[in-house]
Amino acid sequence: MDIATLLGILAGLFCIGFAVVGTEGGGLALFFNIPSIMITVGGMLSATLIHFSMGQFLGIFSVVKKTIFCKLPSDRELIQNMVNYAAINRRDGALALEQHKAALDDPFQIKGLQMIIDGLDEQAISKQLSVEIEYLQERHQNGKKIMEFMGASAPAFGMIGTLIGLVLMLSNLSSPDSIGAGMAAALLTTFYGALLANLLFIPMAGKLGIHSGRETVLREMIIEGLQAIARGEIPTEVREKMQAFLSVKNREELKPNV
Amino acid sequence: MDIATLLGILAGLFCIGFAVVGTEGGGLALFFNIPSIMITVGGMLSATLIHFSMGQFLGIFSVVKKTIFCKLPSDRELIQNMVNYAAINRRDGALALEQHKAALDDPFQIKGLQMIIDGLDEQAISKQLSVEIEYLQERHQNGKKIMEFMGASAPAFGMIGTLIGLVLMLSNLSSPDSIGAGMAAALLTTFYGALLANLLFIPMAGKLGIHSGRETVLREMIIEGLQAIARGEIPTEVREKMQAFLSVKNREELKPNV
Amino acid sequence: MDIATLLGILAGLFCIGFAVVGTEGGGLALFFNIPSIMITVGGMLSATLIHFSMGQFLGIFSVVKKTIFCKLPSDRELIQNMVNYAAINRRDGALALEQHKAALDDPFQIKGLQMIIDGLDEQAISKQLSVEIEYLQERHQNGKKIMEFMGASAPAFGMIGTLIGLVLMLSNLSSPDSIGAGMAAALLTTFYGALLANLLFIPMAGKLGIHSGRETVLREMIIEGLQAIARGEIPTEVREKMQAFLSVKNREELKPNV
Amino acid sequence: MDIATLLGILAGLFCIGFAVVGTEGGGLALFFNIPSIMITVGGMLSATLIHFSMGQFLGIFSVVKKTIFCKLPSDRELIQNMVNYAAINRRDGALALEQHKAALDDPFQIKGLQMIIDGLDEQAISKQLSVEIEYLQERHQNGKKIMEFMGASAPAFGMIGTLIGLVLMLSNLSSPDSIGAGMAAALLTTFYGALLANLLFIPMAGKLGIHSGRETVLREMIIEGLQAIARGEIPTEVREKMQAFLSVKNREELKPNV
Amino acid sequence: MDIATLLGILAGLFCIGFAVVGTEGGGLALFFNIPSIMITVGGMLSATLIHFSMGQFLGIFSVVKKTIFCKLPSDRELIQNMVNYAAINRRDGALALEQHKAALDDPFQIKGLQMIIDGLDEQAISKQLSVEIEYLQERHQNGKKIMEFMGASAPAFGMIGTLIGLVLMLSNLSSPDSIGAGMAAALLTTFYGALLANLLFIPMAGKLGIHSGRETVLREMIIEGLQAIARGEIPTEVREKMQAFLSVKNREELKPNV
Repeated sequence: MDIATLLGILAGLFCIGFAVVGTEGGGLALFFNIPSIMITVGGMLSATLIHFSMGQFLGIFSVVKKTIFCKLPSDRELIQNMVNYAAINRRDGALALEQHKAALDDPFQIKGLQMIIDGLDEQAISKQLSVEIEYLQERHQNGKKIMEFMGASAPAFGMIGTLIGLVLMLSNLSSPDSIGAGMAAALLTTFYGALLANLLFIPMAGKLGIHSGRETVLREMIIEGLQAIARGEIPTEVREKMQAFLSVKNREELKPNV
Repeated sequence: MDIATLLGILAGLFCIGFAVVGTEGGGLALFFNIPSIMITVGGMLSATLIHFSMGQFLGIFSVVKKTIFCKLPSDRELIQNMVNYAAINRRDGALALEQHKAALDDPFQIKGLQMIIDGLDEQAISKQLSVEIEYLQERHQNGKKIMEFMGASAPAFGMIGTLIGLVLMLSNLSSPDSIGAGMAAALLTTFYGALLANLLFIPMAGKLGIHSGRETVLREMIIEGLQAIARGEIPTEVREKMQAFLSVKNREELKPNV
Repeated sequence: MDIATLLGILAGLFCIGFAVVGTEGGGLALFFNIPSIMITVGGMLSATLIHFSMGQFLGIFSVVKKTIFCKLPSDRELIQNMVNYAAINRRDGALALEQHKAALDDPFQIKGLQMIIDGLDEQAISKQLSVEIEYLQERHQNGKKIMEFMGASAPAFGMIGTLIGLVLMLSNLSSPDSIGAGMAAALLTTFYGALLANLLFIPMAGKLGIHSGRETVLREMIIEGLQAIARGEIPTEVREKMQAFLSVKNREELKPNV
Repeated sequence: MDIATLLGILAGLFCIGFAVVGTEGGGLALFFNIPSIMITVGGMLSATLIHFSMGQFLGIFSVVKKTIFCKLPSDRELIQNMVNYAAINRRDGALALEQHKAALDDPFQIKGLQMIIDGLDEQAISKQLSVEIEYLQERHQNGKKIMEFMGASAPAFGMIGTLIGLVLMLSNLSSPDSIGAGMAAALLTTFYGALLANLLFIPMAGKLGIHSGRETVLREMIIEGLQAIARGEIPTEVREKMQAFLSVKNREELKPNV
Repeated sequence: MDIATLLGILAGLFCIGFAVVGTEGGGLALFFNIPSIMITVGGMLSATLIHFSMGQFLGIFSVVKKTIFCKLPSDRELIQNMVNYAAINRRDGALALEQHKAALDDPFQIKGLQMIIDGLDEQAISKQLSVEIEYLQERHQNGKKIMEFMGASAPAFGMIGTLIGLVLMLSNLSSPDSIGAGMAAALLTTFYGALLANLLFIPMAGKLGIHSGRETVLREMIIEGLQAIARGEIPTEVREKMQAFLSVKNREELKPNV
């Protein structure tokens, strides 16, 4: 679970909420308006539906969920795993790895380990798993593009809503008392659009990009490690091959613990 | 027919329309103004005419139609077709494919099949069909550029219209009652421009790009399949060559059904 | 003469003019103000003069003229010409082409034909004429950059003019009657800037780019054709070499008609 | 310590402060508002937290500190050092460099010198230290991206705060006296956002880029010098290899002074 | 001296000044305000100081001076010089060029001529002078970046100043007479920022880029000419090598006149 994303969203909502509720004369009711939400969110979703394919659109929730709840293994954990597999592979042969497959829950590592067990050579492992990385990046890229489009579309529909509100208010100037309230309501859509874009969509698109970069490096480390195991290298060599992806100060001496 | 595009347009119009009509004191009449439409739409079309050539300009409607109604075959369907052709080709020879040409309605596939029947080798097939893909992409790129230009031009002419409205209103301040109405009318052009750009042109430019990418991949799959058939490969090999374009989980075992 | 550009400008002016004159209380006089024009157009031209060299600046009119009146030959016409020259070249020798040179008014084609008559080989023809294409593209690129700069500069000076107008109006609030008129006048410069940029400069920069691309392709077709003639190829081959630049559906069977 | 950054911040605050305090009716109190700061700074920090990982976020202060206090050695100093090392290396052998290591406080140079002492060849030195430069650039790039994101996010949350303020003010129009004060408070967040972005984040992102470029060149000079020392070259050759990174007028004759 | 830059600045100031002074109720005094200048210019300079290094900052004036007063030799003059040197070199030997060095005031040409006199071969000449061109371009690029940053920073500080002015005015609404004057003063900073950016910084950044391109071509022509002289070629060959940089219509027959 990515604590920074959740913490950021909560902190942002708290800051905004404090200003909305804490000010004299304020209150959540002033900032909650169904038609305004409909224009901003509805308009943005409609535009997203026009821009992307149905499949991409329906994948938004899975994208958001992954951004918030995605848990990547640490470098240390990954390297320890591979070092152990290398030790087992040399001591008991590849088939002995079969029983360690069950402990994994990452399909990518499971698939890689299976290839070692099946005795595939390093070229085959690298080729098949690299294709998986490509599809992963394409999926991430897709999610990032949708988030970015929503980040650009939300403020635009916010402005459209404000224009509608202003036209309505200006056409009914006869009751001067309602001018303030009408104008306040008109500005709400711009507020919604700006908040959605700047607190959610734009930063989450950024986070997706960072996750994608990090996951790609981790998977390349796994491929490097599996290749070394497939060549029958000793645990120390496997560790060094994988640690080439880390900065010097993050490299530590890991030994097989099985 | 691309359901997402149509659904998006309808949903967007519903959200906006609900706000326009459903609000107290609202109504479609307030938001419908012939001179405002003329400035925004007319100005935008004029600028598009100046920017592009007459031929490109007249092709806009065909572009829009294709974005909404374009129907691409599924991967599965395409691969099944090619697998069948491969089976027929090996069993009865290339000439036996002649009678299957009639069932196709995609000119690209018809042309490719004809080349197989005519006995062209794989280089010739790849070369001629690749040129077709290039022209396809150029056409798509053109359509996308026009949509993007209209998406940038519409809000600009919306603002020009609002400026005209403001100048007219400010020059006739003597009747204070008309200030509200004049200002409301002035804002309409900005509203039209923002709506056209953000609900239609910008998302449709995006959809065109996505369609273009998808169609290119499909046609490259067709070329790959036709080349394999021209080399006289067995249906299983044809299928595997084409499925290399798909992610692993979308690959399924297809057998010739003819 | 490029009909789309002229039509676009006329249609745009009509749409804007209709709104300006046709509205109740409107009139051209409200929208015509010498100091406003001076700030917007004068400021923009001054900035252009600072940005570009004197020579580039003085070339603006020639650029505009070319965008509107530039007449490119059709593919068909060009290919027919080259096919005829090929026939004459094979039948009567290169010197017989001398008398056809007079009928041409495009210096590029004249120069190319002269090189055939002078008996230059295909490398020499390609090298010399390719340099001409490079200079052509540089000139076009220059014109496009100036147009784009003016398209960015005009709205900026429009805003500067509006700021001047607002400061003047706000400093003389004692006569409340003049507020409306002062504000209307202040907005005029923004109107001028937006109209010039969006109806003229930005679309014309786009058209220049499209003309440039088209003219480059035509000239490359001419070089291809002249090279084939220099190699003494038959008219059919010359035609096929040139038609490789066209999409399949635009290729037609042209025979020498001399 | 980078004097330009500090001077710029102080000068900027003085110019702004002078206008705020020095104007009749002004005063710091008018421009200080806790909820406004909370929305702008809190919102911006929340968005940054969502965009980046927790580790990158917590590194912001170290990034800012480095931008202001980072002290790079001069070209002259660096070359003098390397020239001295070359002289010692040739006179007394690599081991004699051991005692000079203590005088250095840059880990990069210390590591390089250690490699010379350990007798590594030039390939090994170049390979290991180049990896360090890559990590350095990645760290700088990261800091720059965070600064740029904050520079874009601060004005956005400033605008969000102003929208909240306007909605609150417009909903409480009953007391006309408070309109001015409410509007003034609403504008404060936009002011905060614009000031933070334009006086701090955007220029500091730029400075980080310039520092990064400069530091990379210095480290490449060090690698070049160390390689020459590892090859056992004479001090003059070491100096010339390193001075190839400088413009001619900055090259001076440096001799070993040990 | 670059006449276009000076003319543009004067023309721009005249257009703006005419509107400011020539309008009824106008006058320079309305548009001159020390604190406004301090915020806009002071803030912009502070941000520039933070962004760039002290050395780059102090070089701004030299950059501006060069943009306005920089005088580049004409193609004709340059080629004539080189053709003369070639004639002298072949007639009297390289040493005879010594006496012509004094007539030059461009350090680049002097350095090149000295290399011919010293008998360096063409590779050495090209290598050493190419490095000089690289440093020239880097300097130009630097000046352009500073100008562009100032062009982006000035309007931002203009807006910051207007926000300060608005907050001050809105907090002192008790005296309604001062509203107009306060608002006018607030808008002045935006006016200053827009004028500085659009009349000075942005166009001058553009001019610097054009100068840089032109100067690079001239220096490459010089290198080409010097290389030909170093190879002992005859004046006609030197001229032709240099004229390859010019479009055909600018090539004229130049003969040695010494």
